[in-house]
Amino acid sequence: MSSSTEPLLNTGEMDSNMDPTRKQSLDVMDSDTEDKLVDETNIEELVKELPQATDRTVQFLDNLLAVLPNRWRNWIVRTIFTLLMVGSFGLIIYWGPLPLMIVTLLVQVKCFQEIISIGYSVYRVHGLPWFRSLSWYMLIASNYFFYGESLVDYISFFYKNMNFIKPLLTYHRFISFSLYVVGFIWFVLSLVKKYYLRQFSLFAWTHVTLLIVVTQSYLIIQNMFEGLIWFIVPVSMIVINDVMAYLFGFFFGKTPLIKLSPKKTWEGFIGGGLATVVLGMIISHVLCQYEFFICPIEYYDTADWTFRCEPSKLFQLTEYELPEALRLIFKVTGLPQTYMMYPFVLHSLALSLFSSIIGPFGGFFASGFKRAFKIKDFGDVIPGHGGLVDRFDCQYLMASFVNVYISSFIRAPNPAKIIHMIHQLKPEDQVNVFNLLSEYLNSTMTGV
Amino acid sequence: MSSSTEPLLNTGEMDSNMDPTRKQSLDVMDSDTEDKLVDETNIEELVKELPQATDRTVQFLDNLLAVLPNRWRNWIVRTIFTLLMVGSFGLIIYWGPLPLMIVTLLVQVKCFQEIISIGYSVYRVHGLPWFRSLSWYMLIASNYFFYGESLVDYISFFYKNMNFIKPLLTYHRFISFSLYVVGFIWFVLSLVKKYYLRQFSLFAWTHVTLLIVVTQSYLIIQNMFEGLIWFIVPVSMIVINDVMAYLFGFFFGKTPLIKLSPKKTWEGFIGGGLATVVLGMIISHVLCQYEFFICPIEYYDTADWTFRCEPSKLFQLTEYELPEALRLIFKVTGLPQTYMMYPFVLHSLALSLFSSIIGPFGGFFASGFKRAFKIKDFGDVIPGHGGLVDRFDCQYLMASFVNVYISSFIRAPNPAKIIHMIHQLKPEDQVNVFNLLSEYLNSTMTGV
Repeated sequence: MSSSTEPLLNTGEMDSNMDPTRKQSLDVMDSDTEDKLVDETNIEELVKELPQATDRTVQFLDNLLAVLPNRWRNWIVRTIFTLLMVGSFGLIIYWGPLPLMIVTLLVQVKCFQEIISIGYSVYRVHGLPWFRSLSWYMLIASNYFFYGESLVDYISFFYKNMNFIKPLLTYHRFISFSLYVVGFIWFVLSLVKKYYLRQFSLFAWTHVTLLIVVTQSYLIIQNMFEGLIWFIVPVSMIVINDVMAYLFGFFFGKTPLIKLSPKKTWEGFIGGGLATVVLGMIISHVLCQYEFFICPIEYYDTADWTFRCEPSKLFQLTEYELPEALRLIFKVTGLPQTYMMYPFVLHSLALSLFSSIIGPFGGFFASGFKRAFKIKDFGDVIPGHGGLVDRFDCQYLMASFVNVYISSFIRAPNPAKIIHMIHQLKPEDQVNVFNLLSEYLNSTMTGV
Repeated sequence: MSSSTEPLLNTGEMDSNMDPTRKQSLDVMDSDTEDKLVDETNIEELVKELPQATDRTVQFLDNLLAVLPNRWRNWIVRTIFTLLMVGSFGLIIYWGPLPLMIVTLLVQVKCFQEIISIGYSVYRVHGLPWFRSLSWYMLIASNYFFYGESLVDYISFFYKNMNFIKPLLTYHRFISFSLYVVGFIWFVLSLVKKYYLRQFSLFAWTHVTLLIVVTQSYLIIQNMFEGLIWFIVPVSMIVINDVMAYLFGFFFGKTPLIKLSPKKTWEGFIGGGLATVVLGMIISHVLCQYEFFICPIEYYDTADWTFRCEPSKLFQLTEYELPEALRLIFKVTGLPQTYMMYPFVLHSLALSLFSSIIGPFGGFFASGFKRAFKIKDFGDVIPGHGGLVDRFDCQYLMASFVNVYISSFIRAPNPAKIIHMIHQLKPEDQVNVFNLLSEYLNSTMTGV
């Protein structure tokens, strides 16, 4: 590998401004600090230091399982830690919405760290200490922005009369933007000639990671605000789909599904999909019966840590007639023609179809990414599973879908929010709205 | 350069799934198709084909100017095309808001093309035709999303009773998300083993470009909706700052400002800044007097292409007292103690300070980017200036600032929008809001 001996920009106009000693310094630049990016010839060398340990097991488990063949050992470790994770998930839900949000934040931070670490190894910027600080600064700034945006709603519901918070809410966006601009200027000032290419690459890497991790974990929080069921059902569906696809693939898998993930099979894909639809409906039906899961977060009473609300239409048992096509069959077999069901259970069908058909593409994407950088896992925090990103790859895509689904098909303008907006108007505008509304109601509802 | 002879993932578990012929294919891979990214040793070779022509002039101008020394020739070409651009900008403003929005869109598309072309050259994916289509598909999808988001407001003002548009507005976000998911799946399915690294890099490149270009041109459109003054004043400030910094630097420049842009000087920075503040206030004062510039877009009457509105407080002459510190000096010199001014002119101070202090960092960032990839310009569409991105680098940062500034300090909840939201409620909720509001007004305004 030879270093470039060209000046940065070779136009006559620029040359007059160039210090000749700077040209010299390029000539003597040693190949280790040369400004180059990723090269297939050395990428495995670069990522060597990343934690990689799907086969790592806790020591005492390892000894216990030593007698079993490799395939079964991995199976058992994976199962134990799947159950552990599902158990802890249940426990955190039991603790209520605030711990859930904190855990979401922690998962986000760990995912960010795992993805950013790959960037550091690949672009070898260990010699540029500012870069690590800059990435974390950007993480904090973007979290302040996004979590702030959801907390604005939350806080304004609970502390309607706390005037000292008002400037923090009103100027929240301005403060966030200022934080970002500081990071941006910091980046520009930290640019070092030798490293331009790597610094810009890593800056882009940071932004894409923030886009994936922070914006989508913000969407998760937003979903929770609509009622915990909008968080628990989708998360469970992805877990069920993962586990069931693994089981169906393990026992019946024959036909490879996609080159990117050679372990995935059509049998796993289809079996997992069917299981997700059925189990998703059952879980939805059960959760629909508890106020804890169906009440939007503004009905959470922090005095005794419970939810109290009138269930919306979505969570009231409704009579549904069978579709035309099935009526005859059911008539012949003597089964009833109408069924009582929560409307949410029908919506759960859309969610389970997305999680089992489109969801796996989040996994394929992560697979391809790992192959591009020749790593086996994103990290080693969960024995038998790898890093957090390895487990949460599809969750983020799912969360975006749920968020869009809610905003398109579920959420209606909220009277409480409208009243809150009117309170912020100038007195004369409040009277104005009142008069317009009274006029409108008189004209449209002469029968009421 | 030697090709890697390692399998993609070298763990025992994976190896069993690996086709031995695929390992072989890696061995015989020729270095031209090798999956490597950017390397300083060949980056100049890669970007050679990009249009680069700051020194290019229109042929007849070239002949005319042949007698002049190089430095002056460039100066004159640059001046002619600056004046041409400022003139066309004025003409487009005269045509009204719709042509302005279309031009904003066209500028955005051209900027996208310029940045994306650099990615293509650098990652040499000419052999992967899907990639070019995928990037443009993403551009269309994200524009549909963002322009749709602003048009939702716009359309709902003008076509309040056109029910057939309603589903398009209500499901706009869902349609956009579906378009994105299609692009995402398309990307995953288009992954080709040899090119993983380059494909992921270019996918990230596309996303960062969309983030810079599309989201920020959406913010520009949003600013226009608040009144054309929020678009024209910031754009003019950046132009003034660019031109004035160039002039001050050209005539008085001595002290270099930043290594990234060796032609920039402290003299230009300070002179340009002062000129921006002064000229910004003058332009603001003039524009404040015309309804065409100050009325929000919902007061645009498409019947006779004019704006008609009651100027808000921001655009009404208001008496201001001098700050304490200046009072004595003004008293001694016999100047008046109070002045009539539009409040907007005071806000213009914040804008001009941002555009002259922070704005240039947008330019430094673009400079650093060009140096990282060893290109002189982003394109060659404007003789004497380079590509569109070379001229619009600071405009995008400025537009974000203006947007945040408006949402933090200017925009108040809008009675018309609130009434529109109430109309979308269910009848019983409308009555509910009415009762709550009537109660609230009775309790707070017993004096009105």
